[in-house]
Amino acid sequence: MRDADTFNSGRELRLAARSGAFHRPTSGEAPGYVQANLVILPRDWAYDFLLFAQRNPKPCPVLEVGEAGSPETAILADRADIRTDLPLYRVYEKGELVEETGEILSRWRDDFVFFLLGCSFTFETALLQAGLRLRHQEEGVNVPMYRTNLVCRGAQRFLDSPMVVSMRPFAPADAIRAVEITREYPAVHGSPVHLGDPAGIGIADMGAPEWGDAVTIREGEIPLFWACGITPQLAALVSRPPLMITHAPGYMFLGDRADHEFRLSG
Amino acid sequence: MRDADTFNSGRELRLAARSGAFHRPTSGEAPGYVQANLVILPRDWAYDFLLFAQRNPKPCPVLEVGEAGSPETAILADRADIRTDLPLYRVYEKGELVEETGEILSRWRDDFVFFLLGCSFTFETALLQAGLRLRHQEEGVNVPMYRTNLVCRGAQRFLDSPMVVSMRPFAPADAIRAVEITREYPAVHGSPVHLGDPAGIGIADMGAPEWGDAVTIREGEIPLFWACGITPQLAALVSRPPLMITHAPGYMFLGDRADHEFRLSG
Repeated sequence: MRDADTFNSGRELRLAARSGAFHRPTSGEAPGYVQANLVILPRDWAYDFLLFAQRNPKPCPVLEVGEAGSPETAILADRADIRTDLPLYRVYEKGELVEETGEILSRWRDDFVFFLLGCSFTFETALLQAGLRLRHQEEGVNVPMYRTNLVCRGAQRFLDSPMVVSMRPFAPADAIRAVEITREYPAVHGSPVHLGDPAGIGIADMGAPEWGDAVTIREGEIPLFWACGITPQLAALVSRPPLMITHAPGYMFLGDRADHEFRLSG
Repeated sequence: MRDADTFNSGRELRLAARSGAFHRPTSGEAPGYVQANLVILPRDWAYDFLLFAQRNPKPCPVLEVGEAGSPETAILADRADIRTDLPLYRVYEKGELVEETGEILSRWRDDFVFFLLGCSFTFETALLQAGLRLRHQEEGVNVPMYRTNLVCRGAQRFLDSPMVVSMRPFAPADAIRAVEITREYPAVHGSPVHLGDPAGIGIADMGAPEWGDAVTIREGEIPLFWACGITPQLAALVSRPPLMITHAPGYMFLGDRADHEFRLSG
């Protein structure tokens, strides 16, 4: 199900990304280590985004916020460099995607603040350990992600904007288990926001995800939809901050902390 | 266990507080309605506090943040007035408590931002419904609150500062139930942060709580300690923002939403 050459730790993957050697989606990589979405904004926009995240905790569960000007992590990983340690970045200027790039060293500014948000890849370990199978991993592709008609509540200059979801199909008994298990992980999107008919949340064509790749849904399977950390990228398209840098969908930050640390403890 | 004249809704209690008729602690009042801690700061300090809360979610679970200058709630209650609708307020200037007052109309400023934080009184309804008894309600006093040696992680101008806890004693079987039940309410402090020996978290004298009232701990009972929304007030004493207004300990904001809405849903 996984490559033989997968990484043994989040740090190993980060160093491979830093050197430019690793540039694939990260689902299933360095199993057992936390994965996270990245958002970087100028300090002037940091309160707006933190409040947007507070108002929309399912798509935007904040795990770490950097100090203005510092690209160094302290909570999810010991001194990772947020400018080089992800496999792929996206740069948005006034809501337009202007570049996809392997590092952002030359773009870094003294007023940048980074945010790391929980990612559903973190609870995938728990799903696999429970004996469930993940179709996108079986098919060797990126998880499919869709824009929905669920609305995130705006905050300051971040406007109301659509929630993005990731989708995983399961047979009914496994779907129930998947709800039970992911409910235990509220810091990494928690339980699904929808299951069953895609039209119920405004998805017209399951074969054409806006991000990631389509996967097979077999006869009798039910699609489950989880809030997704790509949601801030869609908010950026709508709200047009002067500059915002994110990870590329599916190409996540890998931390030093274990997935199970994000299991609900209270 | 409760007064015969308790309120039938959060709104009823708010109106009584607004008129000046109600000025008691709110534990057990308007049962079934959410209760919340209040913090008001100038806009210039809002990011610092929101980040402090993000880094310390057990003592500071943020439920609603107002717009700068607006005293009106939109999420926890329909148009409550944050300046009048709590039974008692505290005003801190540069970390000094300068006033306790029934309303803050004349102190309100155009740059004030209010924060409502989850309160353990919200999960008390679930504990009572499970057949547990709450000693402070039985004895008709405010819940006891203590300063601990657990350290909250600072953020910007909010410095590292001690966590405050509330305490409820239970027989062992009920203590286990209380952990199980409150774990389901992460938005209102969740499961306890400590149980058993008070010295383990730096509490020297259970008979002398810093806030609220001491309660009887019977032979064989175990004290359970939950993170408490008074924590920001202690952070203010340490960090000395120019002005910060809060509720008085135990005199909470009452919302329109039901306690059970804050039960974990994912």
